Amino acid sequence: MHSGYSKLSGFISLFIVQIIFLVLYWVYVRYDVEALPKDDVPETEGNGLKEEHVSKYPQFQDIHVMIFVGFAFLMTFLKKYAYSATGFNLFVAALTVQWAILIKGFIKMEDGMIRMSLENLIDADIAAAVPLISMGALLGRTTPIQLLFMAIIEVALFAANEYVALDILSITDVGGSITVHAFGAYFGLAVSLMLRPTKDKNVAGKHEGPSYNSDTFAMIGTLFLWIFWPSFNSALADGADAERAIINTYLSLAAATVTTFVLSAIVSHENKLDMVHVQNSTLAGGVAVGSVCNLLIGPHGAVLIGIVAGTISVLGYRYLSPMLTSSLRIHDTCGVHNLHGMPAVISAIFSAIYAALAKKDDYKSTLEDIFPAMADSQQIESSTNATEIILGGYGRTAGQQGGYQLFGIAMTVAVAIVGGLITGLLLKQTCIRNLNKEEQHEDEQYWEVPAEKEC
Amino acid sequence: MHSGYSKLSGFISLFIVQIIFLVLYWVYVRYDVEALPKDDVPETEGNGLKEEHVSKYPQFQDIHVMIFVGFAFLMTFLKKYAYSATGFNLFVAALTVQWAILIKGFIKMEDGMIRMSLENLIDADIAAAVPLISMGALLGRTTPIQLLFMAIIEVALFAANEYVALDILSITDVGGSITVHAFGAYFGLAVSLMLRPTKDKNVAGKHEGPSYNSDTFAMIGTLFLWIFWPSFNSALADGADAERAIINTYLSLAAATVTTFVLSAIVSHENKLDMVHVQNSTLAGGVAVGSVCNLLIGPHGAVLIGIVAGTISVLGYRYLSPMLTSSLRIHDTCGVHNLHGMPAVISAIFSAIYAALAKKDDYKSTLEDIFPAMADSQQIESSTNATEIILGGYGRTAGQQGGYQLFGIAMTVAVAIVGGLITGLLLKQTCIRNLNKEEQHEDEQYWEVPAEKEC
Amino acid sequence: MHSGYSKLSGFISLFIVQIIFLVLYWVYVRYDVEALPKDDVPETEGNGLKEEHVSKYPQFQDIHVMIFVGFAFLMTFLKKYAYSATGFNLFVAALTVQWAILIKGFIKMEDGMIRMSLENLIDADIAAAVPLISMGALLGRTTPIQLLFMAIIEVALFAANEYVALDILSITDVGGSITVHAFGAYFGLAVSLMLRPTKDKNVAGKHEGPSYNSDTFAMIGTLFLWIFWPSFNSALADGADAERAIINTYLSLAAATVTTFVLSAIVSHENKLDMVHVQNSTLAGGVAVGSVCNLLIGPHGAVLIGIVAGTISVLGYRYLSPMLTSSLRIHDTCGVHNLHGMPAVISAIFSAIYAALAKKDDYKSTLEDIFPAMADSQQIESSTNATEIILGGYGRTAGQQGGYQLFGIAMTVAVAIVGGLITGLLLKQTCIRNLNKEEQHEDEQYWEVPAEKEC
Repeated sequence: MHSGYSKLSGFISLFIVQIIFLVLYWVYVRYDVEALPKDDVPETEGNGLKEEHVSKYPQFQDIHVMIFVGFAFLMTFLKKYAYSATGFNLFVAALTVQWAILIKGFIKMEDGMIRMSLENLIDADIAAAVPLISMGALLGRTTPIQLLFMAIIEVALFAANEYVALDILSITDVGGSITVHAFGAYFGLAVSLMLRPTKDKNVAGKHEGPSYNSDTFAMIGTLFLWIFWPSFNSALADGADAERAIINTYLSLAAATVTTFVLSAIVSHENKLDMVHVQNSTLAGGVAVGSVCNLLIGPHGAVLIGIVAGTISVLGYRYLSPMLTSSLRIHDTCGVHNLHGMPAVISAIFSAIYAALAKKDDYKSTLEDIFPAMADSQQIESSTNATEIILGGYGRTAGQQGGYQLFGIAMTVAVAIVGGLITGLLLKQTCIRNLNKEEQHEDEQYWEVPAEKEC
Repeated sequence: MHSGYSKLSGFISLFIVQIIFLVLYWVYVRYDVEALPKDDVPETEGNGLKEEHVSKYPQFQDIHVMIFVGFAFLMTFLKKYAYSATGFNLFVAALTVQWAILIKGFIKMEDGMIRMSLENLIDADIAAAVPLISMGALLGRTTPIQLLFMAIIEVALFAANEYVALDILSITDVGGSITVHAFGAYFGLAVSLMLRPTKDKNVAGKHEGPSYNSDTFAMIGTLFLWIFWPSFNSALADGADAERAIINTYLSLAAATVTTFVLSAIVSHENKLDMVHVQNSTLAGGVAVGSVCNLLIGPHGAVLIGIVAGTISVLGYRYLSPMLTSSLRIHDTCGVHNLHGMPAVISAIFSAIYAALAKKDDYKSTLEDIFPAMADSQQIESSTNATEIILGGYGRTAGQQGGYQLFGIAMTVAVAIVGGLITGLLLKQTCIRNLNKEEQHEDEQYWEVPAEKEC
Repeated sequence: MHSGYSKLSGFISLFIVQIIFLVLYWVYVRYDVEALPKDDVPETEGNGLKEEHVSKYPQFQDIHVMIFVGFAFLMTFLKKYAYSATGFNLFVAALTVQWAILIKGFIKMEDGMIRMSLENLIDADIAAAVPLISMGALLGRTTPIQLLFMAIIEVALFAANEYVALDILSITDVGGSITVHAFGAYFGLAVSLMLRPTKDKNVAGKHEGPSYNSDTFAMIGTLFLWIFWPSFNSALADGADAERAIINTYLSLAAATVTTFVLSAIVSHENKLDMVHVQNSTLAGGVAVGSVCNLLIGPHGAVLIGIVAGTISVLGYRYLSPMLTSSLRIHDTCGVHNLHGMPAVISAIFSAIYAALAKKDDYKSTLEDIFPAMADSQQIESSTNATEIILGGYGRTAGQQGGYQLFGIAMTVAVAIVGGLITGLLLKQTCIRNLNKEEQHEDEQYWEVPAEKEC
């Protein structure tokens, strides 16, 4: 009875959120000039999307597939949780993208209006990845209402942290390993810590595990994420930088994949391959190369990073995750710490190293595109942003930039953990329904499931 | 015996259709000039596809995924009909695209030849959506031969109606909600009415329903349709209009999705989410914004339309469809009335409203691209198309254009219903095999199904 | 015991291969100039990827989906082999792409360095198709270690044969039907011949067959291959040639599909459709048009080729494959001979015919792009490549070019068969673990499979 009422009130409050979004869009959001009709004069510009967007729309759609098919099916690996994996993924992402456009728009607002173009959609999709990563840590142990409210808080925090990291501290993170992957993973783990069972009934849920079929569905997710990761990492780069990001991500993923298979066989029982590793650790190469994929790491650098990422991810699944569960009672259903968390930290460390080695002679005119704070001192004069100058925004040395990279990941992890702990505390409030152990990892709590014997 | 003979003769007649297509292509179809080798002179044009097509090929491929994966898997939700859903979808679409190129080519033929370019492929894919939508209404209740012959008739009627609506009446319908979705849905429903069981044995088929597994497969279809809908709606627009179409479709889908989840929980049994709603009503936002997505509806307009679409679609599934089945005995297996029919009518109504509000000051030079009949009177002089002038083709006011939009949807629905009724009558002829109640909604009638116990 | 040791040593030797790759990348591979930062001067070139690559990245991603999702899921049709189909496909492809970049780079090396750009990734993906096609012939009958070592040998041979065919003999093969599909198919069949059971226990494996579910998963593979085949065939063409390649592939696939359904019903038991045909023969249209899709075959030529391909492929599955199994004991699990082998030979024959008919008046300036050896004799003077002149590289007549096309396919099939026989012999060595009959076509040998009853 109480349960039904709580469910209903949760959904109704989400509807109110949607109505609030409508009002905010009405008041604050307008098309950007490039999406508006032009005056007659410049006829030549009228044909086709703005050049930049011609090249970005296909990459946007690749990312769109990652968010809505990739994450969705990757999470179908639980044997009785496919409706929730695909459905809640869609629900969370559809709410988040609307919210991300608003919150990121408010942060960067200039004339009191948020101006929408294709770029906002790419940013919104990337932002949606953040709560979906956290959802992976919590998969099966929350109600949809908890997930949705977590997503709303998390995306606001993410947007603020990202603004500080990229726009104030000028760290480089083109593939979002620091701001997206590390943030999403550690936030989710912190929420998971808060939601851990109060007593020590730390047995695995009876439905927590894959079936042959659910593991096959999960491969749909893995493969689409794997395929389109070069688009994710290169979407915010341009020109030769984008091409390097594509090449490096491709090579890192390939090397991580070979490493994953080999190590999975070596560390697993009877040297049999483990689908958990294949579904997840193969992707760690995409995360680990994220922050450096547009740098001059060389094709061999990408291969090396892939090998490191695959190794650490498989070892994390095999040894670290069970330890975290047993010692800290942190459940991590999808193992996001091994797929997103640790590889993102590795990426940040590599970014510090490569930043510290960056030279004007190598990067030429793109040095200032990639590391805006390393623009030389003559340009300080023309800067109008006092904050950036105070923070050493301009004229940084390569070594300083390396330090900033490390500070960026430290800050991000700290904000994510503190934010996650507080959010987890809120989600445990008695006014919000929590799932019992018996209700976890199965669809029946929230879905009408066909009566026939399910297999 | 008779059944086997009838099956065989049906397939053989389809082969004859394919041979006729071959002959028609041989006689009438040639490459368009842009797909032909050029003379040596303009070297610069030789590099890469024609500019327009550079930007359209990725969108074409997105639509291609919608037609061949999206529709196919969306229809796998029936527990014993996955071969037919994916197989017949492919069969119908492969025949239809060849036919659509011919029939649309004949209608617009100029020098006695049909000229093929990438554009024809996009048009053909969009045309294939029409019989596939109708197939959704009939899913599991027809033989493949009935489906294929229905598709041949329907696509011819569709092409004629589309020509009248867009080229003669100059209505605006960039996403095809009127000409594609409304036509396909009401045509299919009319066929369904004709094929309803003669006696009142109106019980649901014993195989009509999902399994846990089939519902998961169906989500593949839903998600790819959801993801690529902005490409469908924007494929025929250019420049800033295309970018608005993308943005509006994205927002409308997101808002419809949140609304669908919320309303599904509110109206369903025990407030549990219903996969039928999640699979279908989430997409209603793409249909409802179709006819207006390139207009200046504002981001908030898109969100509003999404909320309306999700609401009407869920309520349609919950209340209207059971009524139509019980009162008129119109079966609608996939609920195309709630996904395509009603949202398309809503889209048409919105298009009338926004057309009536269209001002030259807002749309600037694009007014005549979007509403060709609103080109100002000076341009009448240079027009060579007498029909358009007679029909008030030029110099329309915004209010008149709004009226034409309403006439467009009314005509389309009328043509679809009358055409569907006549087609349904033809398909019931005794020379064509019909399925018995017991043969419905299962693959075994037309497929070799593995002998093992199926789950 | 021995088995465990053999498994482990196999995986460890693959890890050594990955480390060797790392060293080779370190020493030999650098970014191509287009992926490197530019000097300041030409500002306009800095915006966006190089023009050519703007248009190629979406096509690259389409091919990427074909290789990693298309091939993977097409091979899930066996009821107990989905982990291996999707997993080993990923493993083989991830190793192969790294290797293909190296080996193709070494062959075309100019200044002692391999220069990487997006083009290398497209080439690597296409090369990955070769061992995956062979894997289809062997599916379920090899260990992953055998597959991986086969892939390494095969890709080296493929690259050498392709270099001779395209660069020395100047045959035309834009869609790779000759160099990719024929090579992969006949190589795989030759390996299969060597790995056939020594005694005559030629019964089908007990797990060799589909389930309802596995057949549905396989349709994911079929449909994505079907959809993106136009990208595969057109990726290496430009301008109008690419547009023709897209149009012709689209039409050929559509016609092959209709033909496949019709013939499947005609030749199958009780005139029921056979999923094997639908999953595979529908794709034969893409292979059969591959070598000629950029030629002036006309839309009707494409439809005709599709009809021929669908016919031969279905008849091959129905009649030829059982004969090959019973007479030569060549197993061909996926029927690659019917999907890749015979359609590729047909494509080569068509390419000889169309090449022999090629006229300067029709192809204009593109004649020399498509048939470089038919460049007129005046250009011989400026040639610096003695080999090409000796081989009749320049000034070929159309008839001669037709002959070269036939020589190209003959050489390719011969190299593939001899190479496959030798490779098969190597894979049978006692130091490499072979699967027993009872261990075939099931995942449990190499995967941790959930204990629950599988369905």
